Amino acid sequence: MSGDSAIWIDGAPSRALPLPDRGLDFGDGLFETLLLRGGEPLYPKLHLARLQRGIRALAFPDSHEMVCKRLDAACAEIRARGWRWSALRLTLTRGAGPRGYAPPTAAVPRIIVAATDLGEAPAHLASPAAVGMASVRWPTQPALAGLKHLNRLEQVLAAREYRQAGLDEAVMLDQRGGVVSVVAGNLFLVLNGQLLTAPLDSCGIAGTRRELIMRRWAPATGLTVREANLTMTLLESAEEVFFSNSLLGLRPVGRCGKRAWRSHVTCEKLFRRYQDDLA
Amino acid sequence: MSGDSAIWIDGAPSRALPLPDRGLDFGDGLFETLLLRGGEPLYPKLHLARLQRGIRALAFPDSHEMVCKRLDAACAEIRARGWRWSALRLTLTRGAGPRGYAPPTAAVPRIIVAATDLGEAPAHLASPAAVGMASVRWPTQPALAGLKHLNRLEQVLAAREYRQAGLDEAVMLDQRGGVVSVVAGNLFLVLNGQLLTAPLDSCGIAGTRRELIMRRWAPATGLTVREANLTMTLLESAEEVFFSNSLLGLRPVGRCGKRAWRSHVTCEKLFRRYQDDLA
Repeated sequence: MSGDSAIWIDGAPSRALPLPDRGLDFGDGLFETLLLRGGEPLYPKLHLARLQRGIRALAFPDSHEMVCKRLDAACAEIRARGWRWSALRLTLTRGAGPRGYAPPTAAVPRIIVAATDLGEAPAHLASPAAVGMASVRWPTQPALAGLKHLNRLEQVLAAREYRQAGLDEAVMLDQRGGVVSVVAGNLFLVLNGQLLTAPLDSCGIAGTRRELIMRRWAPATGLTVREANLTMTLLESAEEVFFSNSLLGLRPVGRCGKRAWRSHVTCEKLFRRYQDDLA
Repeated sequence: MSGDSAIWIDGAPSRALPLPDRGLDFGDGLFETLLLRGGEPLYPKLHLARLQRGIRALAFPDSHEMVCKRLDAACAEIRARGWRWSALRLTLTRGAGPRGYAPPTAAVPRIIVAATDLGEAPAHLASPAAVGMASVRWPTQPALAGLKHLNRLEQVLAAREYRQAGLDEAVMLDQRGGVVSVVAGNLFLVLNGQLLTAPLDSCGIAGTRRELIMRRWAPATGLTVREANLTMTLLESAEEVFFSNSLLGLRPVGRCGKRAWRSHVTCEKLFRRYQDDLA
């Protein structure tokens, strides 16, 4: 049933995290949100590659094999339950540790897999999003930029704000006022027929669908993509704006503040490539 | 027995956190580390005031009363156990929530109290610390600066590094190379007989002992304290350097890189004020 959920901790069904856990104490961990069709994760290699980058950056013990094992086991369970489409969040923490910031020299990472039945996923593009401006900005942190770690307070605050305003999403800026992303997705502008997206060298999360757009879907539709420092002026002058994430794939932006967009042809084209990929 | 520990979740003894919890998922929470003598917390008002600032900044439901209740109950337990000195970590998370960054409109915060028996705390000043330079810098984030929230990856990475180097602590810089703090404490320089400390307007944690030094202990010993943008050049030219945190009170810096300090008279003076406070 859509909305059903399941959680496994280190492979066992459980809804109780053993404490202490450094993921809770310090956000000392990483996560990935995967979309599953019939219990099969989409683009698992891209998710695992980003997780691996995080594992290296945070100096976690090599956990690749165990992560794959836990992911496979959860997917098998989901297939057994017959969930058509599901969202799976895999969280990797540094596990237990003594009091204090310093991690134990021999940390034993913990893997938490939480899955939710989404029922039937629509095969068509989501409706154009009404987008606001987040008043909280991304923190400047080149050492962790691009990674999907557990320190996500800015996105929590920004999501709270756009929900309260009755909006679908919000544009998040960096500390200098540059346009980076939305709260739960990477942002793309279409300018003179070219795709532009933020470089994510000092903040933000490098999404798997961002990578697919840049390396696969845009080239396949004859579009060029370029990383560029984006501004609000640039966004407002864009012919088209959309964002990407693992659950929606792509979603057009219908309006941001006073600026509205009617045409979403580029986003529609890329979404068709994505659907072709899935077929 | 020193090293003994206890954990309470929402008032009940437990070492299993119900999932989902937004503290784990996004670092959506706050914490305080209090020093207790005979089960009595030192300076609880300062800790609760900082927690309250965090509660407002993160737009948590007002939790003051419940926090006080849980803290009181844990302290009573610790007194019953006869622990002489103990460290108590109080963690407040936004509790459960549906998938995604947006917090539920009616969040029910969760309070986790973890206490550790420290045995006998030394009544004398800790030995001068050997301090390194953290290669990871504080993130720039004025919206959360000063608060003790759960997003603490930079300190985890810096603590790992100084431990591996066999050091006691490390100086952490901001993104522009300014001197901010050590990993687990606020930093003070003595320059021309005056105390200087970083303003913490774009990063760092505003410590309770920092506040006590600035408002109470330094004035009581005839010292002036000033917030100033600190540099490594300034640190190296300081007559004395020390740091403060809730568990140690104050600790002198014996060396940082090639620079060594023999005199710790100011730190000793302030530590005596602290001891007088406790007497």
